[in-house]
Amino acid sequence: MHTIYGMRSSGNCYKLHLLLEQLGQPYRWIEIDTRRGETRTPEYLARNPNGKVPLLERADGSCLAESNAILCYLAEGTRFWPADAWLRAQTLQWLFFEQYSHEPYIAVARNVVQHPNHPRRDELAQLQAAGYKALAVMEQRLADHEWLAGLRYGIADIALYAYTHCAADGGFEMASYPAIGDWLQRVRSQVGHLPMQV
Amino acid sequence: MHTIYGMRSSGNCYKLHLLLEQLGQPYRWIEIDTRRGETRTPEYLARNPNGKVPLLERADGSCLAESNAILCYLAEGTRFWPADAWLRAQTLQWLFFEQYSHEPYIAVARNVVQHPNHPRRDELAQLQAAGYKALAVMEQRLADHEWLAGLRYGIADIALYAYTHCAADGGFEMASYPAIGDWLQRVRSQVGHLPMQV
Repeated sequence: MHTIYGMRSSGNCYKLHLLLEQLGQPYRWIEIDTRRGETRTPEYLARNPNGKVPLLERADGSCLAESNAILCYLAEGTRFWPADAWLRAQTLQWLFFEQYSHEPYIAVARNVVQHPNHPRRDELAQLQAAGYKALAVMEQRLADHEWLAGLRYGIADIALYAYTHCAADGGFEMASYPAIGDWLQRVRSQVGHLPMQV
Repeated sequence: MHTIYGMRSSGNCYKLHLLLEQLGQPYRWIEIDTRRGETRTPEYLARNPNGKVPLLERADGSCLAESNAILCYLAEGTRFWPADAWLRAQTLQWLFFEQYSHEPYIAVARNVVQHPNHPRRDELAQLQAAGYKALAVMEQRLADHEWLAGLRYGIADIALYAYTHCAADGGFEMASYPAIGDWLQRVRSQVGHLPMQV
């Protein structure tokens, strides 16, 4: 059985919570509070030298970091990971887009808004501007496709749902993105869907 | 035959140049100058709505963005992509690490140093501090492993070589990272290795 070290209120950790529940796989969850320094202890750094959550640990103690790498590992061989090589590549494209062009702006803007003394407070307008660019890329795809990669719900949708569904918390005006709004609703209606714990 | 839209002086594009040469695959390279707005034309945005290089285009016109997704697609079924699921997951972990914890600091610091009027000039010290954290994570892995993921050279090494080998351009003092230095030398000694065009 896998162990996940994660923080329930983190979107990156929520991705794994959602996939594992939808896979129906048993797992152990160890709650880690990053704000209390629990990713900077010697014990945690021995598991993940990069000091971040989430982290997957296997029964033999071997570990895997990076939320989207963990999604790929857990989804392999299931309906959440395409069998076709080109669709797998499209899935990876969206996963890298999420970590490079989406999360660093949309998740960080949410964090800034939620914490009035956040050190990046002065950057909020730039974070939002970059976040809107990411939303526009998603809107264009979803205007004429049901899902981000391929013809069915999969880990690209899970990864991008995590911080898109709560983008309004970061001050993003979502009414201008109707295709994203419809897609969020489709994701929510999948069997086994769970809300993020905030 | 694949077409790559790329800029030779970009590390993200160099990753593909290097892998394609080492694979011995024929390909067409279309040089794109991002500084002259060539990723913002309607024609380019039709291929990649996110307006970035590199981009892979197949003979049928379908496109794939994100350098590391393209590496995975090109490497599948070759010696550069592990056959074992856990080693593939480790490879993906390093690819996501590269795009989230390494490139946004080490590549951007290099860009700032190279362009005296760069808009992020004031952030250089923070970029370097975050870049050093990424180098420390690599150093720890490479202190007792020959390669980043698994037992042989592969796309994790290619992806991280791209901006690590020129980190000194961004003001990084590399003498404190001897294991990285040895690894850079091992990467350079691989058959078919090519330097980045700067």
